[in-house]
Amino acid sequence: MKLIANANDLSIALNQVIKATSTKTTNPILEGILLKASAGTLTMVATDLEIAIERTLQADVKVEGETVVAGRLFTDFMRKIDSEQVELTLLEGKLKIKYGDNESFLQVFNANDFPPVAELTEAQTFSIVRKELKDLINKIKFSVCLDDSRPILKGALLEVSDITLTGVALDGYRLAKCTKAIEKTTAMMSAIVPSRALVEIANLLDDTEDLVEVGVQKNYILVSLEHTKLTARLLDGEFINYRQIIPTEFTSTVIVPKDIFESSIERALLLAKAEKTYLVKFDIKDDMMYITSNSEMGTISEQVPVKLSGKDMSIAFNARFFLDLLKPTNVDHIQIKMNEQTQPGIVVPSGAVEDEFLYLILPVRIMN
Amino acid sequence: MKLIANANDLSIALNQVIKATSTKTTNPILEGILLKASAGTLTMVATDLEIAIERTLQADVKVEGETVVAGRLFTDFMRKIDSEQVELTLLEGKLKIKYGDNESFLQVFNANDFPPVAELTEAQTFSIVRKELKDLINKIKFSVCLDDSRPILKGALLEVSDITLTGVALDGYRLAKCTKAIEKTTAMMSAIVPSRALVEIANLLDDTEDLVEVGVQKNYILVSLEHTKLTARLLDGEFINYRQIIPTEFTSTVIVPKDIFESSIERALLLAKAEKTYLVKFDIKDDMMYITSNSEMGTISEQVPVKLSGKDMSIAFNARFFLDLLKPTNVDHIQIKMNEQTQPGIVVPSGAVEDEFLYLILPVRIMN
Repeated sequence: MKLIANANDLSIALNQVIKATSTKTTNPILEGILLKASAGTLTMVATDLEIAIERTLQADVKVEGETVVAGRLFTDFMRKIDSEQVELTLLEGKLKIKYGDNESFLQVFNANDFPPVAELTEAQTFSIVRKELKDLINKIKFSVCLDDSRPILKGALLEVSDITLTGVALDGYRLAKCTKAIEKTTAMMSAIVPSRALVEIANLLDDTEDLVEVGVQKNYILVSLEHTKLTARLLDGEFINYRQIIPTEFTSTVIVPKDIFESSIERALLLAKAEKTYLVKFDIKDDMMYITSNSEMGTISEQVPVKLSGKDMSIAFNARFFLDLLKPTNVDHIQIKMNEQTQPGIVVPSGAVEDEFLYLILPVRIMN
Repeated sequence: MKLIANANDLSIALNQVIKATSTKTTNPILEGILLKASAGTLTMVATDLEIAIERTLQADVKVEGETVVAGRLFTDFMRKIDSEQVELTLLEGKLKIKYGDNESFLQVFNANDFPPVAELTEAQTFSIVRKELKDLINKIKFSVCLDDSRPILKGALLEVSDITLTGVALDGYRLAKCTKAIEKTTAMMSAIVPSRALVEIANLLDDTEDLVEVGVQKNYILVSLEHTKLTARLLDGEFINYRQIIPTEFTSTVIVPKDIFESSIERALLLAKAEKTYLVKFDIKDDMMYITSNSEMGTISEQVPVKLSGKDMSIAFNARFFLDLLKPTNVDHIQIKMNEQTQPGIVVPSGAVEDEFLYLILPVRIMN
């Protein structure tokens, strides 16, 4: 193997591929990056057996061949190179790196030992605008369950209908659901995508109107871009029937100014987090929301002018769940729809496209 | 106690004072901030018994008095307030905080339980331009010893002569020394200032030509600015006689381009750090410096064109020590002066004022 590539382009490509290497493994080859040189192209592959990222790069290939290098070391090394071009040569069982007047040598692994990446030859596929898929993932990913109590909730459900993609993530305390139009699909399908794959898919996507093709086949999902492919193993099992959790009628609806509400909650959480419950109480009446939190360190009480339709309401939430939604959201108002103290509340940011996004939070039971 | 203050100014002041609170103590009052209101001034004090920071702020004091609040909670709370003014009232054993239409209450401690801060009534004092003292600290602080093997080295030596202040820090492997002119002094003096106090002093200093007064009295140092005073306990004992460590004659002097050298070392360290020795070898001859590092993961070898005066040299250093100096230093060249493989090398950044700054690194012994 021998090739010449642009050092900066190679560094950018490696920084994408490295995300799929394993960081905690006893098998060093899973920390490696496979380099394959053939016909004007250098292909880089990394996998931890759960996800795989494959990236191609134009290169001046002098001798075809393949090898595996230590992923973190090679990526860090390339990031710190300041010459414009780099020459990579497999030489006497080492990778020679020539940059400027310097030559360094890295140990390699046998490419035959590198695990194969699943090929999705019979996948059903759908296409969606890249920035829409990225937005969908970013709007649901924080609600994925982090603990191991229900493994199926460590992924998000993606459901494809004729014309839409719906993503749902829930952790037993809150649920986020986002629906986007798709360009076309070969079939109705659904997949439960692990949280980590979800995040890496969003990282690969840009904010353009260009399309991305997503394939689903048995236990795998494949996301294809020009130079990059991400393959991930899906979670196996039945997702929770989330539709029955979402209420459709409400006795109280309140419109709340987002910035004031957010900063009130942040202050209230200063005490609530000391108790590790994050419990904040909300009393809504006469177009005013009274927000209180208590701990042995003090009492924080705030009032936020709101617009209430329906019944007065006293309810308590883990207020961190509000912040997860509000922090990255740039809107004037949010709407909170509720029934009783023990029923979930639904939060809708103002300006949200009807039925596009929904966020549900279970209340915390309190004594009246 | 009752007063009205500008919320933003109060927040800035608290962020300075909070640095002196203890973060790991079983005595909660050391996590507190003392608030004293009297005659148009709110004074805030925090101390962990090692250092104390006292800060004054103009305030509309309605009722004089004092109390102690939980430092972190109060500081975070004030940072998150968006009203312009805040009213603080000691009411029924709690601190009432009124901001806009909201009122919150924090628990307080008894001000009588707050530890007294040392008063330096008989201190010898010197004055120095603030940005010069800040620069001196920043040039030596990274060489302070971090482990407990020799407690006296966990501080830096400050020596005041008639006309200069010299700061010295060393950790057994390297030494940094910086000398600055002072404005005036009441006496020759020396003090061993703990690393943490050193860092907090630098944080308080601005980059102006204004003077700062520093007082030393027995076991304490006092740094006074308009609204802020920092008092710190000194380390007790004899500092190492550093003068005898510093060689004054050299057999080899080499002028090295800083950026190229730095980036070569960064690459070399990628392998050296895998071995946790950080050992990098330097061979200098024919106006070329050959930099190599090895580990079981590979070999990195680089060459840097240099200007050598004197004998050829083969020597090895813990290369991290170079980076500590080079990273924050913006110069074209550095000069490295050496004798033998086993003798310390001295690094001088180009443009350094003669005798102002010196950095010494002990080599690592290697087999030839």
